[in-house]
Amino acid sequence: MSKLLIVGTVAFDAIQTPFGKTDKILGGAATYIGLSASNFNIPSAIVSVVGEDFPEEYLKMLKDKNIDTSAIEVVKGGKTFFWSGRYHNDLNSRDSLDTQLNVLADFNPVVPENYKDAEIVMLGNLHPLVQLSVLEQMTTKPKLVVLDTMNFWMEEPFMNDLKKIIAKVDVITINDEEARQLSGEYSLVKAARVIEEMGPKYIVIKKGEHGALLFHEDQIFFAPALPLEEVFDPTGAGDTFAGGFSGYLTKSQDISFENMKIAIIHGSNLASFCVEKFGTERMENLDKAEVQKRLQEFKELTQFEIELA
Amino acid sequence: MSKLLIVGTVAFDAIQTPFGKTDKILGGAATYIGLSASNFNIPSAIVSVVGEDFPEEYLKMLKDKNIDTSAIEVVKGGKTFFWSGRYHNDLNSRDSLDTQLNVLADFNPVVPENYKDAEIVMLGNLHPLVQLSVLEQMTTKPKLVVLDTMNFWMEEPFMNDLKKIIAKVDVITINDEEARQLSGEYSLVKAARVIEEMGPKYIVIKKGEHGALLFHEDQIFFAPALPLEEVFDPTGAGDTFAGGFSGYLTKSQDISFENMKIAIIHGSNLASFCVEKFGTERMENLDKAEVQKRLQEFKELTQFEIELA
Repeated sequence: MSKLLIVGTVAFDAIQTPFGKTDKILGGAATYIGLSASNFNIPSAIVSVVGEDFPEEYLKMLKDKNIDTSAIEVVKGGKTFFWSGRYHNDLNSRDSLDTQLNVLADFNPVVPENYKDAEIVMLGNLHPLVQLSVLEQMTTKPKLVVLDTMNFWMEEPFMNDLKKIIAKVDVITINDEEARQLSGEYSLVKAARVIEEMGPKYIVIKKGEHGALLFHEDQIFFAPALPLEEVFDPTGAGDTFAGGFSGYLTKSQDISFENMKIAIIHGSNLASFCVEKFGTERMENLDKAEVQKRLQEFKELTQFEIELA
Repeated sequence: MSKLLIVGTVAFDAIQTPFGKTDKILGGAATYIGLSASNFNIPSAIVSVVGEDFPEEYLKMLKDKNIDTSAIEVVKGGKTFFWSGRYHNDLNSRDSLDTQLNVLADFNPVVPENYKDAEIVMLGNLHPLVQLSVLEQMTTKPKLVVLDTMNFWMEEPFMNDLKKIIAKVDVITINDEEARQLSGEYSLVKAARVIEEMGPKYIVIKKGEHGALLFHEDQIFFAPALPLEEVFDPTGAGDTFAGGFSGYLTKSQDISFENMKIAIIHGSNLASFCVEKFGTERMENLDKAEVQKRLQEFKELTQFEIELA
């Protein structure tokens, strides 16, 4: 069976939405990616770093989902990366209230020996040089490397490093505004073409409540977000999407464009659960039946029978 | 064969976009609806009003598309309704620069005898009492009445009249902001439920470049907008969508939810052409082959094969 190597933050978040606020809760890109990918019952490992203040129960919860946490370094006397943010009323934008890098500032990722030949590598949002370092440790060329990043790295002094990692990946996932910033093109069709020139053969543009687009050469696939009665907390939705995408590709061992369509649907489906509760709560308690039921809703939402002349 | 009765403005528009500006050109909701519906080769008629300044060539162009223009009243000495607007850089919003009602101010619609039994009635955006007057002239209850309206009528002193017509239609098409305003709900799922209580059994929420949603009881269908390299002029896109929707339903004589999905796809498909050039230019010169080709693109964009457990 293929293996999934996940790199990204494991962190504390404190979140404010129009519906309420949390104290420090479990967060981080790798956490959401791992929880999401765990729905496919694949071997996976997280490479990350936390401080001594990180509760053992969180690590245990990840282990219970069959995620290998041995490469989550615990820094003695260190403090875990902390992010605090407040969402605006429409939940489409947010302000960062506090960002404490803590142990993340000196993070040197170490890929476990038994994951240096992982078929799929999911690089969650992090400093581009950390992402690069992970790729350099692989002893076998991965079948597929997926990169998630954000606008923070699209400015000086990071842009050159970001371009280096972008040149080395197969798939990039970014949101619409980031695609515009990275490419200098307003039209997402044009933006995808510019980004493809930078390296990745597959461009996933996430549009939040407006769904996600997958571009590859002249082909485009679109998956809507499931229309929900209430979005409670968007934190981690993009990472959950990436975890579903990379998790499904690991499970199915098929990286064709046609199969990536299905991966996009799985990613969108899992993300639709993530936003229903604060933080990781919903993703920690998700059963197969409700995931399958919602996939059926995705089919009904998007599939039609049309006769072409 | 079923007939389509179209009510709405036939007008002059002057449009400014980031790409250029036009002088007075042909516009109006009924114009776009008629041109779009004419792709289905169905009997259709437009009920509207213009002034003596309205060029005969425009009427001829509509007639050449097999649209019955005999109920477009030409008011002697009158001036045609004129709208002028400027789109912002993202093309998602616009400012009205000038609105001259002219002959529209005293418009008394008269439904032609041979259309008083039309199976499908498409009420384009107009004063709600004008829309109501058209429905009252029908001698046979239409199989389906589709209402398009806008936020302008959702305020005093029009809101009560708008509610009267909303109560009498089967389908309403509005954009996302209008759905929120009309319902007082931010979530579009909740908004659709509130609007369904007001009368229409089918709610179409148009989201511009983000596609369109169709709601009916517990069912939801979504059609994306085709990702385009360039949107040149969004004027008339919503009307073109409505024309494709109602035109296809007239042609197919099937008003089931399943068939409305196809109608939504046809509407989205035709709207994707409309925005490629200024005004009606693209819709006046559209051939069957390119419409079919783009329907195929819609299929590739949205259809996937997924196995459910």
